[in-house]
Amino acid sequence: MRIAVDAMGGDNAPGEIIAGVLEARDVLNPDDELVLIGDEAVIGAHLEKLGSTPDKFHIFHAPDIIGMDESPVEALRRKPKSSIAMMARAASHRQVDAVLSAGNTGACVAGCQLRMRNLEGVMRPGIAAVFPTFYGPVTICDVGANIACKPMNLYQYAVMSSIYAQEMLGIENPRVGLMNIGEEDAKGNELVKKTRELIKSDPSLNYIGNLEGRDIFQGKCDVVICEGFLGNVILKLTEGLVDMIFAALAHEVKDRNKLMALWFKSVAKDIFKKYDYHEYGGALLLGVNGVSVICHGSSKARTIKNAILACKKYDDNHINQKIVDHLAKTTVVSNGQ
Amino acid sequence: MRIAVDAMGGDNAPGEIIAGVLEARDVLNPDDELVLIGDEAVIGAHLEKLGSTPDKFHIFHAPDIIGMDESPVEALRRKPKSSIAMMARAASHRQVDAVLSAGNTGACVAGCQLRMRNLEGVMRPGIAAVFPTFYGPVTICDVGANIACKPMNLYQYAVMSSIYAQEMLGIENPRVGLMNIGEEDAKGNELVKKTRELIKSDPSLNYIGNLEGRDIFQGKCDVVICEGFLGNVILKLTEGLVDMIFAALAHEVKDRNKLMALWFKSVAKDIFKKYDYHEYGGALLLGVNGVSVICHGSSKARTIKNAILACKKYDDNHINQKIVDHLAKTTVVSNGQ
Repeated sequence: MRIAVDAMGGDNAPGEIIAGVLEARDVLNPDDELVLIGDEAVIGAHLEKLGSTPDKFHIFHAPDIIGMDESPVEALRRKPKSSIAMMARAASHRQVDAVLSAGNTGACVAGCQLRMRNLEGVMRPGIAAVFPTFYGPVTICDVGANIACKPMNLYQYAVMSSIYAQEMLGIENPRVGLMNIGEEDAKGNELVKKTRELIKSDPSLNYIGNLEGRDIFQGKCDVVICEGFLGNVILKLTEGLVDMIFAALAHEVKDRNKLMALWFKSVAKDIFKKYDYHEYGGALLLGVNGVSVICHGSSKARTIKNAILACKKYDDNHINQKIVDHLAKTTVVSNGQ
Repeated sequence: MRIAVDAMGGDNAPGEIIAGVLEARDVLNPDDELVLIGDEAVIGAHLEKLGSTPDKFHIFHAPDIIGMDESPVEALRRKPKSSIAMMARAASHRQVDAVLSAGNTGACVAGCQLRMRNLEGVMRPGIAAVFPTFYGPVTICDVGANIACKPMNLYQYAVMSSIYAQEMLGIENPRVGLMNIGEEDAKGNELVKKTRELIKSDPSLNYIGNLEGRDIFQGKCDVVICEGFLGNVILKLTEGLVDMIFAALAHEVKDRNKLMALWFKSVAKDIFKKYDYHEYGGALLLGVNGVSVICHGSSKARTIKNAILACKKYDDNHINQKIVDHLAKTTVVSNGQ
């Protein structure tokens, strides 16, 4: 397969991105191709610095970069020669099978949504992020692609995430829950009530009912379905809270005993390693016709390598085909929802 | 003032609740009255067990209890003589100035919303919860009273929470942020976009713009405004994530070194003490004509004592009058929003 990587996106671009591409190159099959998108001269210089040569890769020259803080849609319009815009175009022209970027998330999602068509039967793509929890990985969809969700969108996220969790994370018959404000069926707004009816009417989904916020981290479910505004807050809140707790702990420990503080540092390091979202490479934009991985802005070489391998695994396991097949045979219909 | 306490509500009722009432009695003014609502015989027995006597308190006999897992509105209808239903009625008849319960949250909120009228000018009450963060307390409103928020509701939550943070937490000119999915003004759904215009048009609010999920815990704001579905998920997710992190840490530490594990246990204990939501007693149902405090189901005597003292402080600082005054003089109008 052909995997395109935005060489210019992310806080550590292009050095770490290109280093990740090199690491992935070593483990991919010889017939898998990697395409680097970005400033040709800069990419070439970095490849040589890292002991490789430009002729080992396809390079699509993109002279522009969309900054991390630029307004996504406006930047895409204003910078058609940016690495993200060119990456999305390459996917839409089927020049590549998969794309990934650690750059401006909004631009990356918008670019892929605009350029790559949806899979047959999919109404709206959704972003599936994996949360590493004490009880195993939990997939949450949508975390920000669709902030005007309809029940049918959420039903499709349940289908797609369920297949994703099964094929990518190896979870047999993933338990799917609907994010809500209470466990009882009567709880929630119209969106979740209607969504529940749709999800329940698909017997091939292992639907376990409503979830409350705390359930994400307590081993109750493998897949969490929610609309994109809520999912985005959940994603970022989790990140911020984890940071704060470890900052508070480090502060508390530091004041007490230097030796113990050192010891705790190593514990914290191991914890971060064990529950490390970099392990999963990035979040998948499920529902587009192709593979699109959105990496965290802080991605390092290892993250990029894992994201490239995730593209490969996604493709090898025919996840898109399985999604299309599932939606083709489902009896769940939209009724304008 | 007269403060009514649901003696039967919560995981540790009635023992811890009544113990908390006794602790509060010791520090309240002699002319403040405490009313215990619940089974008279049970309350009497517990008071005597704790070295007090029933004649020191007003007791409203309520033979029924609404269980923690009962469906709120249905239970209120079915059990008019439950402690929560009677508590809400006592407030509506002005027999008491403040009410508090650690029982079924939904029933408590629904009961107070149904029975207590709104403050003049308030369209819908909202629940304000205080999150103790590394950078100081952050007030979040609404965390679950109103899952069909209009922009004007959210504007009023900004006004009420701002006064709350100033008067109850001593924060001068609290920084108010709007929970969103990005920092730029253009981000978000219609609800947050319209709310922003309303909040911005009230110059007496210290509005700092959009917040992302991570900002809650990073010292960027004192007050977070969001609709109740989102706020409820935020509240419960935070609780679940904190529990999981400390479980993961305890697990990690235990495997290494027994002495260090003991030491870490004491660190964790201190952290929990420092960032302890029991300190605030409970969440305030802002906007009702009176004082209504919703305590956590796990409340202990100290929580109940703090909740009673919070009622007193709320009343002493004339927070409701300040809310009414602010809303009476605001030029922000609803336009059907």
